[in-house]
Amino acid sequence: MRDIQADKDKRNIEIQKVGVKNIKYPILVLDKKNEQQHTVANINMYVDLPHHFKGTHMSRFVEVLNQYHGKISVKNFGKILAEMRTHLKAESAHFELEFPFFMEKSAPVSGAKGLIDYTCRFSGSSNSTEQDFIVSVAVPVTSLCPCSKEISERGAHNQRSIVNVSFRFSKFTWIEDIIALVEESASCEIYSLLKRPDEKYVTEKAYDNPRFVEDLVREVYLRMDKLESVSWFSIEAENFESIHNHSAYAYVEKG
Amino acid sequence: MRDIQADKDKRNIEIQKVGVKNIKYPILVLDKKNEQQHTVANINMYVDLPHHFKGTHMSRFVEVLNQYHGKISVKNFGKILAEMRTHLKAESAHFELEFPFFMEKSAPVSGAKGLIDYTCRFSGSSNSTEQDFIVSVAVPVTSLCPCSKEISERGAHNQRSIVNVSFRFSKFTWIEDIIALVEESASCEIYSLLKRPDEKYVTEKAYDNPRFVEDLVREVYLRMDKLESVSWFSIEAENFESIHNHSAYAYVEKG
Amino acid sequence: MRDIQADKDKRNIEIQKVGVKNIKYPILVLDKKNEQQHTVANINMYVDLPHHFKGTHMSRFVEVLNQYHGKISVKNFGKILAEMRTHLKAESAHFELEFPFFMEKSAPVSGAKGLIDYTCRFSGSSNSTEQDFIVSVAVPVTSLCPCSKEISERGAHNQRSIVNVSFRFSKFTWIEDIIALVEESASCEIYSLLKRPDEKYVTEKAYDNPRFVEDLVREVYLRMDKLESVSWFSIEAENFESIHNHSAYAYVEKG
Amino acid sequence: MRDIQADKDKRNIEIQKVGVKNIKYPILVLDKKNEQQHTVANINMYVDLPHHFKGTHMSRFVEVLNQYHGKISVKNFGKILAEMRTHLKAESAHFELEFPFFMEKSAPVSGAKGLIDYTCRFSGSSNSTEQDFIVSVAVPVTSLCPCSKEISERGAHNQRSIVNVSFRFSKFTWIEDIIALVEESASCEIYSLLKRPDEKYVTEKAYDNPRFVEDLVREVYLRMDKLESVSWFSIEAENFESIHNHSAYAYVEKG
Repeated sequence: MRDIQADKDKRNIEIQKVGVKNIKYPILVLDKKNEQQHTVANINMYVDLPHHFKGTHMSRFVEVLNQYHGKISVKNFGKILAEMRTHLKAESAHFELEFPFFMEKSAPVSGAKGLIDYTCRFSGSSNSTEQDFIVSVAVPVTSLCPCSKEISERGAHNQRSIVNVSFRFSKFTWIEDIIALVEESASCEIYSLLKRPDEKYVTEKAYDNPRFVEDLVREVYLRMDKLESVSWFSIEAENFESIHNHSAYAYVEKG
Repeated sequence: MRDIQADKDKRNIEIQKVGVKNIKYPILVLDKKNEQQHTVANINMYVDLPHHFKGTHMSRFVEVLNQYHGKISVKNFGKILAEMRTHLKAESAHFELEFPFFMEKSAPVSGAKGLIDYTCRFSGSSNSTEQDFIVSVAVPVTSLCPCSKEISERGAHNQRSIVNVSFRFSKFTWIEDIIALVEESASCEIYSLLKRPDEKYVTEKAYDNPRFVEDLVREVYLRMDKLESVSWFSIEAENFESIHNHSAYAYVEKG
Repeated sequence: MRDIQADKDKRNIEIQKVGVKNIKYPILVLDKKNEQQHTVANINMYVDLPHHFKGTHMSRFVEVLNQYHGKISVKNFGKILAEMRTHLKAESAHFELEFPFFMEKSAPVSGAKGLIDYTCRFSGSSNSTEQDFIVSVAVPVTSLCPCSKEISERGAHNQRSIVNVSFRFSKFTWIEDIIALVEESASCEIYSLLKRPDEKYVTEKAYDNPRFVEDLVREVYLRMDKLESVSWFSIEAENFESIHNHSAYAYVEKG
Repeated sequence: MRDIQADKDKRNIEIQKVGVKNIKYPILVLDKKNEQQHTVANINMYVDLPHHFKGTHMSRFVEVLNQYHGKISVKNFGKILAEMRTHLKAESAHFELEFPFFMEKSAPVSGAKGLIDYTCRFSGSSNSTEQDFIVSVAVPVTSLCPCSKEISERGAHNQRSIVNVSFRFSKFTWIEDIIALVEESASCEIYSLLKRPDEKYVTEKAYDNPRFVEDLVREVYLRMDKLESVSWFSIEAENFESIHNHSAYAYVEKG
């Protein structure tokens, strides 16, 4: 059978990324407490395509993926990228994973346990001379408006916020540590199971720690900036305002 | 050219609904204050298919739609359904529209004006003997937790909630009136533009009017139940909890 | 601390469903080939609320969920529903799970293996006298248009379709068997990994088995109707048309 | 009332972007054929925040938006950005709009008319010395696989693809012209209303013009590269494969 993809292409256009997108796949990820956890990822895999080839061989992406079934992890990212470049005869490769990551948390007073899900993203690229790897984690927290508290005689509007931190690191960094650092930057952290004494605690804690969306990104910035193992980071926060039908948003990046 | 759709089908299975789904289309809707407003709808159109036909004629749905371009409204629903039944030679027809509906609101103290969007849905069906028409509107509001207020020394968690009301009516009913009724049932209504005196007002008003998700649906129920023109309704409320990563939810229906 | 939820409510409105929505949770599901598989679910849990109570106790839903951590399965649905009714002192309970389910499939010619994900949904309800349980599975397939094939001198438009089957059963039924039955009803089934001889096979198979969206639901209907263990079913199919920017849709139900 | 936002901030962190996100708003956009059309946008508005201020004044974004109600257009982008910088006392401003854009198209043989929606995005930034403006448009088309056609005795798998083109320009460029250019780069363009002779035409045309996802981005590249008014562009294409449950994807950029 003729291999059309291998045909010569005369349009003289190199393609930066070509591959497969939105593959759902069960994966195992490292877990500080339980060694590893099962979850389900959304996966994208791309390589470059030199100008003289008509097409890439799409089935080979899934072959590489299957080869690492049950072995996809931060530690294997470099190998997976190298394997993609070899198997697809490409100069550069890109591998992206997005998945829910679960952590058990104890309620602040009762100690009642519950799971919280955090959306994580691993994004790696490599070519023959360079490698890049970015981790992102989206942390839901409570934010309470400092202005609303200051000007009102009672109460203060508050809401769920999502703080998304992306970072590059020189030394292995646990997602759990980044999550903890974000949670202590907020008005209060979020739980899945709260009994009444816990609810009193989180209500008062949020009221005592008002944070604008600007404060959220700055507080996280201060803490990220102290991590010697982190060489670059960006922070974005979105507040799903309880008094509006739109969000408040802030973004900051450390170059 | 052969008309395959008109072929005889021997599987002896009548199909309840067949048609087109997720058509985006600009529409004009009635507006109590400005007579009408331009918006964009997502449209589904279905008819039944008798067991002896192999297929329906999909292009005819879009023909009916085009015939009513600029004239799609509550008032024309009956005609559109009748036209679908005629043009597609069907017994029954279903027509569904979902669209954002905009209302200008004045902030409670400063009077500053802003637009709020509400997701509306019209859903109509008819056959030779019966006709049915349901209107739905999703209203974003603020809810403040009565339990959190009661047990805490200061503050109370609150959040954006969406209250979705669906109803059948015997007399024309303005969406605007249903929206107003839902907004007065909440801890506080939502605005797009609030100056500081307004923010103080909505903060204190929400604090003074705590509502569980259960209270939201019950308060709306009481008000809907008084409308003589409404023959059936259902109410659902979802609170995007500021202290959890999941929602609180309630549903009630009047038969 | 005062229990506001237990307060007497005088509005005299019973609430049909109240609870928690959109909880993400890791679960284990039964798997015909590998006994069980790890996946991640989206969970809703509701009970009724008698008219004389002000609120339900939301934290108890998560307590019931945690009690069944690692043990959520079709077999335990009855127990979970009973536990919800007891723990929340309710008359009726509703438990809904939605999750991706993975199956390994071999390519039709090369035998190359790959995983396909199917979105499944379990939805159970119970009160003191009755119990109801519905399973749904969404199966992606290829559909090829019979009309396009008939009237064109070469080629025929085809596309990805999603066929969603919901059913009640009197005897345990494997999701895998329903998936197989849907896949054989389509123009061709879908794979994640196809080598060139496989691609030739699926292209020609789809061309040789043209199916309207109406044919999809009727072919599945014929096969579902033969299952003695199935007491009720509905089938809907959506074709993401390659020649339009909207879908073709069909729905059929066996009462 | 105290203006907390104007408080001095000592954390010494400048915020690159802060503002409002996901505001739904009715807008008027320029239309080559009908002068203008009504549609509904999703809007984001951000400014920078110097390190010495605690917060920005969120209500002012909506004030600027309201000032341009009915006058939001490519031509006013510069003015809107300048107004944002003035009104919010900021160095830089960002304004983003995403909206469905409608075009009437005539079917290729019958001439039957129908509307197609294209998702457009305007994204502008400015500070005291520079200004940037990017237009994006997502065009749905049909793609037919060259490999499948070549190796199969009959038929060829095809699917809906979305080609997303982003560009900067030195001279006003109609969205309609970019859409036309993308549509002629595909296996076939998409219509909302096709009668049988049209369906024959598009089926055969797609079969006669097979395109990989790589071909889609290269064919669009060739055409974009000829436009002297375009100073930068990127092209991405996603094929919603009819034979897989994932997409094929390609991205190319001209620096």
